[in-house]
Amino acid sequence: MDFKEILNEIAEETKELEGKGKVANYIPALAQVSGNQFGMALLAADGELFEWGDSQTNFSMQSISKVLTLTIAFREIGSEVWERVGREPSGNPFNSLIQLEKERGIPRNPFINAGALVISDILCSRFPNPKEVLLDFVQKRAQNTNIQYDKIVAQSEKEHGYLNSALVNYMKSFGNITNNPEEVLDLYFNQCSLSMNCVDLVKTFSFITHRGFDSNNKERILSRSRSKRLNALMLTCGMYDESGDFAFRVGMPGKSGVGGGIAATIPGKLTMAVWSPELNSFGNSLRGIKAMELFTTKTGMSIF
Amino acid sequence: MDFKEILNEIAEETKELEGKGKVANYIPALAQVSGNQFGMALLAADGELFEWGDSQTNFSMQSISKVLTLTIAFREIGSEVWERVGREPSGNPFNSLIQLEKERGIPRNPFINAGALVISDILCSRFPNPKEVLLDFVQKRAQNTNIQYDKIVAQSEKEHGYLNSALVNYMKSFGNITNNPEEVLDLYFNQCSLSMNCVDLVKTFSFITHRGFDSNNKERILSRSRSKRLNALMLTCGMYDESGDFAFRVGMPGKSGVGGGIAATIPGKLTMAVWSPELNSFGNSLRGIKAMELFTTKTGMSIF
Amino acid sequence: MDFKEILNEIAEETKELEGKGKVANYIPALAQVSGNQFGMALLAADGELFEWGDSQTNFSMQSISKVLTLTIAFREIGSEVWERVGREPSGNPFNSLIQLEKERGIPRNPFINAGALVISDILCSRFPNPKEVLLDFVQKRAQNTNIQYDKIVAQSEKEHGYLNSALVNYMKSFGNITNNPEEVLDLYFNQCSLSMNCVDLVKTFSFITHRGFDSNNKERILSRSRSKRLNALMLTCGMYDESGDFAFRVGMPGKSGVGGGIAATIPGKLTMAVWSPELNSFGNSLRGIKAMELFTTKTGMSIF
Amino acid sequence: MDFKEILNEIAEETKELEGKGKVANYIPALAQVSGNQFGMALLAADGELFEWGDSQTNFSMQSISKVLTLTIAFREIGSEVWERVGREPSGNPFNSLIQLEKERGIPRNPFINAGALVISDILCSRFPNPKEVLLDFVQKRAQNTNIQYDKIVAQSEKEHGYLNSALVNYMKSFGNITNNPEEVLDLYFNQCSLSMNCVDLVKTFSFITHRGFDSNNKERILSRSRSKRLNALMLTCGMYDESGDFAFRVGMPGKSGVGGGIAATIPGKLTMAVWSPELNSFGNSLRGIKAMELFTTKTGMSIF
Repeated sequence: MDFKEILNEIAEETKELEGKGKVANYIPALAQVSGNQFGMALLAADGELFEWGDSQTNFSMQSISKVLTLTIAFREIGSEVWERVGREPSGNPFNSLIQLEKERGIPRNPFINAGALVISDILCSRFPNPKEVLLDFVQKRAQNTNIQYDKIVAQSEKEHGYLNSALVNYMKSFGNITNNPEEVLDLYFNQCSLSMNCVDLVKTFSFITHRGFDSNNKERILSRSRSKRLNALMLTCGMYDESGDFAFRVGMPGKSGVGGGIAATIPGKLTMAVWSPELNSFGNSLRGIKAMELFTTKTGMSIF
Repeated sequence: MDFKEILNEIAEETKELEGKGKVANYIPALAQVSGNQFGMALLAADGELFEWGDSQTNFSMQSISKVLTLTIAFREIGSEVWERVGREPSGNPFNSLIQLEKERGIPRNPFINAGALVISDILCSRFPNPKEVLLDFVQKRAQNTNIQYDKIVAQSEKEHGYLNSALVNYMKSFGNITNNPEEVLDLYFNQCSLSMNCVDLVKTFSFITHRGFDSNNKERILSRSRSKRLNALMLTCGMYDESGDFAFRVGMPGKSGVGGGIAATIPGKLTMAVWSPELNSFGNSLRGIKAMELFTTKTGMSIF
Repeated sequence: MDFKEILNEIAEETKELEGKGKVANYIPALAQVSGNQFGMALLAADGELFEWGDSQTNFSMQSISKVLTLTIAFREIGSEVWERVGREPSGNPFNSLIQLEKERGIPRNPFINAGALVISDILCSRFPNPKEVLLDFVQKRAQNTNIQYDKIVAQSEKEHGYLNSALVNYMKSFGNITNNPEEVLDLYFNQCSLSMNCVDLVKTFSFITHRGFDSNNKERILSRSRSKRLNALMLTCGMYDESGDFAFRVGMPGKSGVGGGIAATIPGKLTMAVWSPELNSFGNSLRGIKAMELFTTKTGMSIF
Repeated sequence: MDFKEILNEIAEETKELEGKGKVANYIPALAQVSGNQFGMALLAADGELFEWGDSQTNFSMQSISKVLTLTIAFREIGSEVWERVGREPSGNPFNSLIQLEKERGIPRNPFINAGALVISDILCSRFPNPKEVLLDFVQKRAQNTNIQYDKIVAQSEKEHGYLNSALVNYMKSFGNITNNPEEVLDLYFNQCSLSMNCVDLVKTFSFITHRGFDSNNKERILSRSRSKRLNALMLTCGMYDESGDFAFRVGMPGKSGVGGGIAATIPGKLTMAVWSPELNSFGNSLRGIKAMELFTTKTGMSIF
């Protein structure tokens, strides 16, 4: 299959969406991003890399980073993770406290904010310097030591992070946060600020495509079974309240962030990343989702 | 892979769950079913059939039938279906009215009761005799003209169907039911009463494994793209409030019913059905779910 | 205090609200009512009657009737009522099923629809002909045998009563409805259709002002203590989701209906009824509420 | 009426409740309070004071203080208060975030925690030293300069105040908190820690009985109309999720705190305070509520 040609077609056919979405504006650092950027990267199972457009322009990972912190926590404490966070789709917008109240401080899954904060708390308990651990992990996966936290974004998140502060404090009132709220939030805001590009992203996520094995570094990250589980979580919970629709239209496990990025995989076949900063009403990249839908429709490839 | 041997192992290893679940007791006709029955059927892509135990004992399809009525509706009116029912996991127990209230009469997906009732309403509008249409569809897929509605179960459902009656009336108050509530409920209670066995079930569902093509009758039921979508729905919504967990542990698109049956698929590879009447707290077959989890763990096969 | 003059002032000062509300249109029989009608009646404790405008034009009681059926049920079975319906404000719009789901079929109070349907069920169990019992009760209190059910309104309610049908069936699924849903709804739709005027209304409600004693017929309807309780319920729950605001601005126990009527009392002092069919967004008479607020402000009278 | 004798009877008849409730234990400083204490004070409209038992033992005001901060805010900015907090019963336990999420950061009323925090924010914006302002207000009303904040309780609240911190941060995320969360919480935890006794309490609340006029200091605190409104709020929202029941059984506007105190009034007639630290499941004083119910039953006095 000629992936290069297919990426060209996708870029062409999604161009009309430019200007139809809305760049995230809840923090100034994100609101300044130019909305008409568009990049794609595709890493085939055999290691061949395809790129299109702004595929090497850095952007803010935001919620995409939740897959990485979960991976580290899962590797560290295994199924103990699930004593503190569920693995069911939330059925509610990504910042909902209703679910949290009903379920007494146990978030529905690790990809809603509350769940990622619990994962952050786990890392804070596990490592003296969890920010370094995460950065090392990402740099190694992507084989790129230039990847850094964006201090301006992290600071901006912090200054506008009242909702996340509410979530941490609320869960702490139920006893599901162990560390100091400030510390947990510091890691969380930093992980969101990770600045990378589409090429970094497909390399970083390729261990999931290879069922837990990092083929670049020849290192097993997760067991085959845990990698399956991570995939299932991405499929059912990876796109906020649009997860079911994404599974339905696209059929790839994936994770999006409000920076406009999406990383997705067809296990055994390929890893794909797209980036376009304009979001739809669910907080997912408008053009990015369309691009992925076109990809699976054009190629007939998907997990189903 | 020696499927026969694997089914043997699964039967052996799940035997300890006998007596640990609870047969559905909301209607007398189901409460009488003997709890210690257990059957499995597996239909490989090449048509080879494997069976174990009570694989030819009939049981009540209950919610499994929702996949079949959705298939018929989807084939008839295509994406118009999604104007009347969503495709997101519900995040709430299967009989919740809360979601329905929030979303003004539009059920979250076609596999919760409310959604299946809307599908039933669509069939009532589309066919003069929808019950015949459904029965023909099932008999043809399973190549078994002995399959029938169980009139005693259907009548029993009707006599205890206040919750479903509430759902239909509630959605009608929002304008999302077109026909007379009695008529919609009649089809619904009948579809739930469909009496079939595991072998019938794998044959009936095999068109989903073959990406929409019924290879027994050489007939296309759904386009490849729609079949992908049906799979996505089963994966994200097929097991009530345990869907995420089923995807996580098992990794197959599937659908369960309170009769104790589960049908599942790995597209391109195989169709599987298990039956064991004792349910867990989510209303899914306790032993059936464990059996499927063991299957994907032992074989390393799954969609992920 | 010159009540006649005060009613004049109120009529004058509220005239500007004409046309600002919206006549109930969920059933045709109500939608046809001319919106610019306005009547008031005031019955002082000593029996002197004051009237203004359309005080003798009949209108549909709707939810006001809930006070009367509760009174009959309370008199019949006393505090057993509270085993089947709560007495807390609902904190949700009057037709919410959320509360009902959370509290497993026990409505929050007898003045939301679900609660009134339970009361209706109680009367159906208690009397062979509950409609006659209610009509006799009202005719006697108002000393007016011309008061009747409006058959056209009752029929119209029935034809559009899917939401109430949903509520009855839902509560029956929890076991909190004893009789046939149709029978319960028949009484309910008839009680809503009661056709009376403001003068009838102040006479009918005056037993509440006199702490349970019907001074016209020299008959004790409720004990002093139960009458206090009925007053408390009207104050906290009588105006749908505007109850708190009505207590806050007006300070009288009262009950409204979507026909545009409001009956209220200052125990020991006076009974008041107003009618104006145009409703505000809470389903209460826009001009009626303002009239009552002006009354307590001008006179300095209230329960507080 | 012989109030002295009635207080005796009440003490006698409620004695059996000793040991049936549970002292608040969410902070150590409260958990240490001895549960079998019981005090009452009653201030008649003419100024005569009646006391019983531990009426001069100090206890923690907790939520009772919400009436006082609301009074100050209401006096300062009048109806502007209602742009930032509602006046409807909550229909949910006192710490619910669900309501807050639905209504986008506007608490239902000033007597749930979220609402009181908004009031605290208003005072922080209005005064350079709001803690002094509140303490002066209380000391003056009670004519007792010994009344102080209990620093140990305030500190203990702070150390366990994650839920309140969540509430403030959550409302700030909606823009309904103006000041620094820490500052708002500091005032809030201090107001909760106010240490006073039943006699102080009836004196402090007597301006509400006198329809806004402090007869001891000959000073108008609230206009007659605003005092009516404050009463309405206490009646509909003063007892957490037991407000409707309290209105129903007792029939007095009142406010409780988890310290075990309740202050209540019959406008024009009397002010009453009871204290008993053991709480019922709603967080209200078990014996205190029974005492007030007996009082209105025995005397036949109430607002209804």
